[in-house]
Amino acid sequence: MKGAILSRAPAVPIVDLCHEVEPQAIDEAGFLLASAATSFPEGTVFAAVVDPGVGSARAIAILEAGGRTFVAPDNGLLALVLARLSGEGRAFHAGAEHYRGASATFHGRDVIAPLAARLAQGEPADALGRPVATATLAPHPAPLPRRAGPRAIGRVVHIDRFGDLVSDVAPPPGAAVRSARLAGREVARPARTYADVEPGALVLYEGSFGTLEVAVRDGSAARALGVARGAAFEALFEDPMP
Amino acid sequence: MKGAILSRAPAVPIVDLCHEVEPQAIDEAGFLLASAATSFPEGTVFAAVVDPGVGSARAIAILEAGGRTFVAPDNGLLALVLARLSGEGRAFHAGAEHYRGASATFHGRDVIAPLAARLAQGEPADALGRPVATATLAPHPAPLPRRAGPRAIGRVVHIDRFGDLVSDVAPPPGAAVRSARLAGREVARPARTYADVEPGALVLYEGSFGTLEVAVRDGSAARALGVARGAAFEALFEDPMP
Amino acid sequence: MKGAILSRAPAVPIVDLCHEVEPQAIDEAGFLLASAATSFPEGTVFAAVVDPGVGSARAIAILEAGGRTFVAPDNGLLALVLARLSGEGRAFHAGAEHYRGASATFHGRDVIAPLAARLAQGEPADALGRPVATATLAPHPAPLPRRAGPRAIGRVVHIDRFGDLVSDVAPPPGAAVRSARLAGREVARPARTYADVEPGALVLYEGSFGTLEVAVRDGSAARALGVARGAAFEALFEDPMP
Repeated sequence: MKGAILSRAPAVPIVDLCHEVEPQAIDEAGFLLASAATSFPEGTVFAAVVDPGVGSARAIAILEAGGRTFVAPDNGLLALVLARLSGEGRAFHAGAEHYRGASATFHGRDVIAPLAARLAQGEPADALGRPVATATLAPHPAPLPRRAGPRAIGRVVHIDRFGDLVSDVAPPPGAAVRSARLAGREVARPARTYADVEPGALVLYEGSFGTLEVAVRDGSAARALGVARGAAFEALFEDPMP
Repeated sequence: MKGAILSRAPAVPIVDLCHEVEPQAIDEAGFLLASAATSFPEGTVFAAVVDPGVGSARAIAILEAGGRTFVAPDNGLLALVLARLSGEGRAFHAGAEHYRGASATFHGRDVIAPLAARLAQGEPADALGRPVATATLAPHPAPLPRRAGPRAIGRVVHIDRFGDLVSDVAPPPGAAVRSARLAGREVARPARTYADVEPGALVLYEGSFGTLEVAVRDGSAARALGVARGAAFEALFEDPMP
Repeated sequence: MKGAILSRAPAVPIVDLCHEVEPQAIDEAGFLLASAATSFPEGTVFAAVVDPGVGSARAIAILEAGGRTFVAPDNGLLALVLARLSGEGRAFHAGAEHYRGASATFHGRDVIAPLAARLAQGEPADALGRPVATATLAPHPAPLPRRAGPRAIGRVVHIDRFGDLVSDVAPPPGAAVRSARLAGREVARPARTYADVEPGALVLYEGSFGTLEVAVRDGSAARALGVARGAAFEALFEDPMP
């Protein structure tokens, strides 16, 4: 993919964002991309590929939202980006000419990277695809967190290399979290950061993605709790949520 | 290595191509490098290091082929690059002065990266080494695929992070593949892409490297078949191959 | 972190140095950073984050040493850099204004990367923090190697992806190493490089970090000896060390 970009946009700086998404985990990729996107400057072009349906009829989408541009399979990967960055983005489906000569199993290299390069060179999205309503982009491929009185029910959407369990539950403003329940276990130790608890203790906190996380200080919560990505994550808040 | 490059060529863009080659697997590195090389623009300088013989008498080679330049140990790593990009490349062995002060165990940092930086800055290869006939470069360190009537016999040369088994058998033009045999098992499900089979099924297809691959849709073929890199891979084609 | 840098310093080249430090291993990070630093050109800004105390009272340090600038938690990560590059560096603690709005668990993204970007853009360190004596920076968080007659006693501070065991014991000039003892086993095979021994043999040599290493040629010493990072490493030299 880097070669395909540099062949068309030799002076464009490329940075690796993340290569650690679980295979086929479109929801995890969408979460990580939506979380990272606004840390990058406006004008950034993101090329994202988690693509179990490669070679099937699913389209390649170009999304302009929040001043940034995203190229990805239209399989739900961009749903959270759209929701978080702007409900008013503009979306496009890449034209058929961009698939010509592409391999059947690696549209990342053969379609997405070349489109990203051309966008980074300043070509307008509407010259590369036909407009589609953002509401018709594929939806997020997993249940989104929901509220039920003082509780929020979500999922573990990402496990980082430290074994920290990252949920998709964002604490609502003004509502302090009291505890979380996951893997049949209650974690009733809300804190601001790891250093607020003793080594080896489980801790519940709002992480750098803006959502609740459970970690073991100086250890791995994934291992300690035997939790895998996708596990249910239920949070209890002190005040009824607004 | 990046520091050694930037110290000599501060404005040159560096991209990471691959850090996942199996330790000592010169053949895998050669396959991946030869497959990726033409995706990068002409003028690219590749620094490649899989170097079990570091510190021994093996030379460091500079190869110009297909408009690109490669610096690597002369241990067979460049044999496939030479075969695929051009039979008419020019090759050089780095001069003794480039080893002066080098560590005995990391010529990547101390010899190859500095040479790559100087080549990227425009220094001609013949100022950095003495010409050698490309035919005298070390050969590919593993058997190459061979044909036997309607069959081709090769090997699994790479297993990607999804567990897809990548062989070195390129389907000859006009000959449709019927099945593959590996690990004592027949995979008789040729398809164009993963999405053509049901989840969990084994599928045989021409992958993005241009060679035959076996995968499990939404799963790991390496785990399902218990296959390691280097395993024999036999393909049966419908028509006798040209 | 890359987004935070590019948002403030859009034209600055970013390279990934290392993402493989063991979680919480400040000593390993310090060793790798101190070893790599002088391979990068003067003027390089290093952003380093191993930060178990994130969100606690520990400061963020800026260190100028050897013509390079380092931004990291003041938790001992910079102690070896300071010792090796210069006893005369200048150190600063980042001002409180740089923590405003920062998450409690990812100062890498919210404090360190923005500071590194501003330093890379040419802002002087004393405009970003208040000077502190380098002697007051947190010390290296693990015992440093010590000498005892003809022996040096250190630790395995890093295990690379090949399973090579990298110690912190640098052979003193003029003193040839005779053997090493680790994990209750003696490795009495000093050599210059892997290729000096037969495949599968244990070998003791001065590695590319400038310290003693133990490896298995074409294999993994970590697996062969069952050694983990932090294990004691004792070297015996032929001549009493100076």
